[in-house]
Amino acid sequence: MAGGGEKKSKANATGGGKKKEVKKETGLGLSYKKDENFGEWYSEVVVNGEMIEYYDISGCYIIRPWAMSIWETMQKEKDHIEGFAPEVAWVTKSGESDLEVPIAIRPTSETVMYPYYSKWIRGHRDLPLKLNQWCNVVRWEFSNPTPFIRSREFLWQEGHTAFATKSEADDEVLQILELYRRIYEEFLAVPVIKGKKSELEKFAGGLYTTTVEAFIPNTGRGIQGATSHCLGQNFSKMFEIIFENEKGEKAMAWQNSWAYTTRTIGVMVMVHGDDKGLVLPPRVASVQVIVVPVPYKDADTQGIFDACTATVETLCEAGICANMDSRDNYSPGWKYSHWEMKGVPLRIEIGPKDLAKNQVRAVRRDNGAKVDLPRSSLVERIKELLDEIQESLFVAAKQRRDACIQIVKTWDEFVEALGQRKMILAPWCDEEEVEKDVKARTKGEMGAAKTLCSPLEQPEIPEGTLCFASGKPAKRWSYWGRSY
Amino acid sequence: MAGGGEKKSKANATGGGKKKEVKKETGLGLSYKKDENFGEWYSEVVVNGEMIEYYDISGCYIIRPWAMSIWETMQKEKDHIEGFAPEVAWVTKSGESDLEVPIAIRPTSETVMYPYYSKWIRGHRDLPLKLNQWCNVVRWEFSNPTPFIRSREFLWQEGHTAFATKSEADDEVLQILELYRRIYEEFLAVPVIKGKKSELEKFAGGLYTTTVEAFIPNTGRGIQGATSHCLGQNFSKMFEIIFENEKGEKAMAWQNSWAYTTRTIGVMVMVHGDDKGLVLPPRVASVQVIVVPVPYKDADTQGIFDACTATVETLCEAGICANMDSRDNYSPGWKYSHWEMKGVPLRIEIGPKDLAKNQVRAVRRDNGAKVDLPRSSLVERIKELLDEIQESLFVAAKQRRDACIQIVKTWDEFVEALGQRKMILAPWCDEEEVEKDVKARTKGEMGAAKTLCSPLEQPEIPEGTLCFASGKPAKRWSYWGRSY
Repeated sequence: MAGGGEKKSKANATGGGKKKEVKKETGLGLSYKKDENFGEWYSEVVVNGEMIEYYDISGCYIIRPWAMSIWETMQKEKDHIEGFAPEVAWVTKSGESDLEVPIAIRPTSETVMYPYYSKWIRGHRDLPLKLNQWCNVVRWEFSNPTPFIRSREFLWQEGHTAFATKSEADDEVLQILELYRRIYEEFLAVPVIKGKKSELEKFAGGLYTTTVEAFIPNTGRGIQGATSHCLGQNFSKMFEIIFENEKGEKAMAWQNSWAYTTRTIGVMVMVHGDDKGLVLPPRVASVQVIVVPVPYKDADTQGIFDACTATVETLCEAGICANMDSRDNYSPGWKYSHWEMKGVPLRIEIGPKDLAKNQVRAVRRDNGAKVDLPRSSLVERIKELLDEIQESLFVAAKQRRDACIQIVKTWDEFVEALGQRKMILAPWCDEEEVEKDVKARTKGEMGAAKTLCSPLEQPEIPEGTLCFASGKPAKRWSYWGRSY
Repeated sequence: MAGGGEKKSKANATGGGKKKEVKKETGLGLSYKKDENFGEWYSEVVVNGEMIEYYDISGCYIIRPWAMSIWETMQKEKDHIEGFAPEVAWVTKSGESDLEVPIAIRPTSETVMYPYYSKWIRGHRDLPLKLNQWCNVVRWEFSNPTPFIRSREFLWQEGHTAFATKSEADDEVLQILELYRRIYEEFLAVPVIKGKKSELEKFAGGLYTTTVEAFIPNTGRGIQGATSHCLGQNFSKMFEIIFENEKGEKAMAWQNSWAYTTRTIGVMVMVHGDDKGLVLPPRVASVQVIVVPVPYKDADTQGIFDACTATVETLCEAGICANMDSRDNYSPGWKYSHWEMKGVPLRIEIGPKDLAKNQVRAVRRDNGAKVDLPRSSLVERIKELLDEIQESLFVAAKQRRDACIQIVKTWDEFVEALGQRKMILAPWCDEEEVEKDVKARTKGEMGAAKTLCSPLEQPEIPEGTLCFASGKPAKRWSYWGRSY
């Protein structure tokens, strides 16, 4: 619970003044283990890590600064940027009165924006038109809500672009997909696979959908990380987005739309978090280094605090996000647990022995490794450590993800792999009816399997390979699995 | 209309190839004059300046990048930061189904946030708690909607803070008010008066409200620029925001809330805009300098374009936001009008003569003044010019605002000044019933008068001064007027 509740350790009072209450390490840990009870672990860690508060409207959550800062970091770093069944939320009343006409809350902005695209685009010189907005959308879903992963209101960016030619549109689809890959892999340290959605899974309004797919080993479910759609000319037909090309002829614009959401934060939590709490990659952590003074009796307490302050200043001047936890009503041990819960990548401890040796002790959040660092070369070593942690998180996550991938050729192998909660790579005949059939046949307690994506990087298909499900000639390799 | 519509100037064709269509200065100006038809002028300039598109939901507007960039600039520059009758919008349906419980869209966030403040604040060490969020809110108003000034959905920041003592709260109220003053005066070049709202006009939920009040000379109406409220302990009582103080006693937190909205952009437009269109202060303009090549027949056209490109590069390297309008299908004259409409503070023209003399011609948007600048000292001179324009806009706006202020002592003087659309400074007995009476007596075609604020800087009240409305002894000077 945020703030640690009211648990105090009371010192023995022998009259006189009130002794200072110092909170020790009580009641701070998670009660659920990630590998044993993943769903409960997740619900608990996002609250204990102070990212989320639950709210009395189902599917809506309070996003706290510890998570918002990650969202804002991603916004800064990237300066460029569905046949979803909209359960559209309708406003029908204001105060006590009924509205004359009910008003929809945007689940996405195509229908709001494209009439204006039609107005703004007249000639080829008005193209390309590229707009991106960061905003909130509402989709009144009825599937299991999960903080960040699936909520009824969420934050996102939605890019909507229009081009004179299909090839420009195709190029941008892949450029944006690459940006999304980099957000996941280089910032969130989460491995993803670039792929194309099947006809059944693509955005129904568009021509084709590309995606970056992640996988959550603890639940054996794939999760769509972000999508970059080519809308073709479907919307320009519908909204009359017509321009005069260089030859003076009327032509319809080619459009794309692309988005990623606060789901990214949930994926990061699920992939890296552990039983001590959140684990934040340095590249998105708002606090990268937490400095904890470790006084011992009366041994130069002021000197220790001064060294901590100086350390924070030195690191901050070098562009590292460092803070000191100088609160005197919490013990060092309590602070260790607290900042581990919040996932801060690196902890620095300074006690009397460290002070005497002009060094600090650095402790990594990801693997618990401890190392003593001389204060003289602190900035370089800390930068190295943060880079190592970032790299290490990614490598570990990729290893875990890769271990989940199973290549199959037959239906029996497929079912067995599904039971083992794998991300399954199988040769497929690429027919929609076959995909529907797979979904129907695998429905059950454990959820139905579907295509996650067809990887852009296709392994070779040996001559004569048959589809794992239909037995017809296989056309492409596809990833299948259960999914969020 | 955005994009200039389809008006083309057709060159005389004498067979052979299609001559290039170059848009000349047709149909670009505003049809309404600010001083003659302010309401229509305003509606037109925000569209022609490409800030707004009208939308088919009354009171909702599309905010385009030219305005969003100003909002974002203000967000970056400031990193810290209602008895409103909520016409709360209610969501009652999703898709085709009724919701079990109707859900309100936030008109402001107190009732969402403060139950969590109660949870997060336990002891004095949890204070002060300071949170700020930038978001959108909905108030389904029925008064005249006006882009930016009064819309049913708008963007804002809302700060909500909690302290252990009233004096900390009081201090912050004024610190924030000073930030708001600076946003208006130093960024938007709009003069404001810091003041306290009357008991009738303050945020009904709070203890007292401070405000920065602006005035729109063209309509003779005051406009509330931003508010910084001390909520006292009203909300901590209601939401049980209780903490244990240093003596171990239970105490209620002292709270503030403060906000400013996209209304700021509307005030900026109304104060500085003219009959040629928008006028943007350099400190918020996303394009500060527009460079226009002015080719003449065949005189070294490439050289002119190269000089323009080099100029933009030089200015950008120095941190000035410069762009070049190199479109070859618009004449220089068209471009002058277009960028004037969009309010760009400075224009640079480079033609053959300028090239030959190694200089550029700079033209100010605010006063039309032209000056030739040697390319060698361009950056310094442009920086000086931009600072002069910023200063000049403020001084001119302040002069116009000051000319609207009328000091009165009697009811007759008051009524006359109201008829002259003034911002009236009058001695008042500070009684709520008297204020209500003034409102009732001045209701009519031209709208009722009310207190705008009681200025924090109070002129002296000579002994024996009587209230202008009630004849009782005057307690304070107050600004009165019609308002938005």
